[in-house]
Amino acid sequence: MTNYIEIKAEIIAIGDELLYGQIIDTNSHWISQELDKIGVRVIQRTTVGDHKESMMAAFKAAEKRADIVLITGGLGPTNDDLTKPLLAEYFNCEIKLVPEALEAVRNFFEKRGRELTDLNKLQAHLPTKCTYIPNEIGTAPGMWFEENDTAWMSMPGVPHEMKKLMKDYVIPKIKSMYALPIIYHKIIKTVGIGESWLADLIRDWESNLPNNIKLAYLPSLGQVKLRLTAFGDDYDELQADVETQIELVKPLIEKYIFGYNHETLEESIGRLLKQKNKKVALAESCSGGYISHLITSIPGSSKYFQGALIPYHNEFKSDILNVDKEVLKNKGAVSEETIKQMAENIRVEFKSDYGLASSGIAGPEGGWAEKPVGTVWIACAFEGNTITKKLQLTQDRMLNIQLTAVAVLNLLRLCILEKTE
Amino acid sequence: MTNYIEIKAEIIAIGDELLYGQIIDTNSHWISQELDKIGVRVIQRTTVGDHKESMMAAFKAAEKRADIVLITGGLGPTNDDLTKPLLAEYFNCEIKLVPEALEAVRNFFEKRGRELTDLNKLQAHLPTKCTYIPNEIGTAPGMWFEENDTAWMSMPGVPHEMKKLMKDYVIPKIKSMYALPIIYHKIIKTVGIGESWLADLIRDWESNLPNNIKLAYLPSLGQVKLRLTAFGDDYDELQADVETQIELVKPLIEKYIFGYNHETLEESIGRLLKQKNKKVALAESCSGGYISHLITSIPGSSKYFQGALIPYHNEFKSDILNVDKEVLKNKGAVSEETIKQMAENIRVEFKSDYGLASSGIAGPEGGWAEKPVGTVWIACAFEGNTITKKLQLTQDRMLNIQLTAVAVLNLLRLCILEKTE
Repeated sequence: MTNYIEIKAEIIAIGDELLYGQIIDTNSHWISQELDKIGVRVIQRTTVGDHKESMMAAFKAAEKRADIVLITGGLGPTNDDLTKPLLAEYFNCEIKLVPEALEAVRNFFEKRGRELTDLNKLQAHLPTKCTYIPNEIGTAPGMWFEENDTAWMSMPGVPHEMKKLMKDYVIPKIKSMYALPIIYHKIIKTVGIGESWLADLIRDWESNLPNNIKLAYLPSLGQVKLRLTAFGDDYDELQADVETQIELVKPLIEKYIFGYNHETLEESIGRLLKQKNKKVALAESCSGGYISHLITSIPGSSKYFQGALIPYHNEFKSDILNVDKEVLKNKGAVSEETIKQMAENIRVEFKSDYGLASSGIAGPEGGWAEKPVGTVWIACAFEGNTITKKLQLTQDRMLNIQLTAVAVLNLLRLCILEKTE
Repeated sequence: MTNYIEIKAEIIAIGDELLYGQIIDTNSHWISQELDKIGVRVIQRTTVGDHKESMMAAFKAAEKRADIVLITGGLGPTNDDLTKPLLAEYFNCEIKLVPEALEAVRNFFEKRGRELTDLNKLQAHLPTKCTYIPNEIGTAPGMWFEENDTAWMSMPGVPHEMKKLMKDYVIPKIKSMYALPIIYHKIIKTVGIGESWLADLIRDWESNLPNNIKLAYLPSLGQVKLRLTAFGDDYDELQADVETQIELVKPLIEKYIFGYNHETLEESIGRLLKQKNKKVALAESCSGGYISHLITSIPGSSKYFQGALIPYHNEFKSDILNVDKEVLKNKGAVSEETIKQMAENIRVEFKSDYGLASSGIAGPEGGWAEKPVGTVWIACAFEGNTITKKLQLTQDRMLNIQLTAVAVLNLLRLCILEKTE
């Protein structure tokens, strides 16, 4: 399909604190994203401890598979930091003082009015086979090796130091070394349909995708992302190819698509409300404020979010939200009649175009035969109509809260788009 | 020091979305922490894509090094999910329908009133050499293998499904299989004091800790956890040693300790309110429902949480919460006078013992010289008194919301304990 050579990279993160779960390895994730952007394919990520045999084995295994090996961590001046001596041993060379590096370390400490210790000076001793890569914001320099057709970069584990070395040196260097493929990603974000149903709807389209476009299903709570990845030589061409495919698949799943790429469901709802200059208010019972939190987590949400009422104790559903006491008594708080009044009353009370409501049994306690844990009613009231919906969710309280939120936000989305039926 | 055999584990995370940096691998981090707690040593973590050769090579390499191999991901019903067929190939066995598993998948869909597709049914076909481990909250079951002295567990990549399988099956199973070292952990949870101040307060105590007790500082948003880890052969002895140390450190930091081990700040507040049989209500402005969400995320919170009002648009601070229009006009929504009225009025409106309120500029927009982004007022009203507090937080909206929540919950805690001064 294309005439580029695929460049394979591996990332090796070093540190006991990672394996023991004391620190989460955000470095490997960030490096993955940066390499992905320039069309380098990360084929494996490995995390090992500060342990000679594990590290040497990881180096050897990575060299067999990859064109580029990026190493983070293990560069401190103390004895438990093994990366430098082991790379010297691995490449079979000595460690010698690099005057330029010593100068840099000295400046680093002078700038900060701190004294240079012998331990710090060790940071300027490097394997003779490496190219010294200055680290302007830390004491451990980067080390670049090119041995047996593999390029290696060793970087400190401190995230901002690693990122600066990647941006200033590694990424430009890689671009200059290889004829890289162009990669174009686009993510279609769907809500309200499960992975397998989605797969059924788009099976034919999927099987007819051109060879240079890959599809991945990325499910999360109540949502499924479809990621299209196109490989080739011409960015505009790839973009056009992907957009063509999206136009083909859209009609099949239109109702479920709420956005593209990194837009969240709450962001897309904010976008729709601003476009139509509409306002929304919420009466949250079982979701307990979570939906309001999602909406208000978006900058500028004060333009379309009027406010919310959380009448957690039933008496306030009538006292403050004016739900008919008789309805509450006879039908219960978790009923279609109650949810309808909650949505309609909150809409009026908060002078909104849309009134949303949730009421259910989040669990783990409080369910009974007729209304088991996970029974949730939701509603959206707007001019001239109120849509209600019953959900049968899980036994897990937090999951029920999150799934209720997704369902309510999706119901609002469908009401705004007039796609409820 | 001990006579146990060290059990080595490896974690393999599968998914192109991880290597492309589309999703951050929180699973491996969480599993590392859980294994660390029971004294199993994680020696390597590997991330590979949905790619046969990479996966098979990772299986083989892990088996050579580890006693336990935990695999997450690649279990979806779609074509890009390879874990199941490859494990069958790796262990050289067929894939057959497991009636029990089919029953479970069918129930899963019936419960949700959804139809079972052929694709879903595939989830019930498993390698004949594996033990079927039911996944009560998802469609992809866990698979346990024991081959050539290595134990394997394959789990879905969906975090809450993986976590449930780990807690319900994997951790107990591992404990039953091996003679693990005795490790006793206890975490002291503090709020309202920074890591370095805390370190200053307990420096002498820390330097006098016995050799078999390790201390770790685990800072998170507005909180610092102190984790004490004791290693030895006798559980009761270790527990006694740790408790002795805790009794020594307590007096130094009493005011900041809100709980131990896994008790969250919102749980400890629920405990206190239930103990004293008191009720709370909230008027949330800048925190937009997040505090209510934290409180209601706790099972049984309906016993002490009356409800909340989120008067996001200022007019409702007066119309519904009855804040004096003049005060709002002259002092503004982000002022001590306004927050005082918000807390006192919500307390009355929701018939509560404690009335909490937040009002501030979450950002990124909306700040000005006199009240920059990050300016937040909070208050707690109770019988006979109202405590107000001004916070100067960050430029980051989400951070400001989270830090406000911690400050408000801590203010409530101190009010309940009558430790405000």
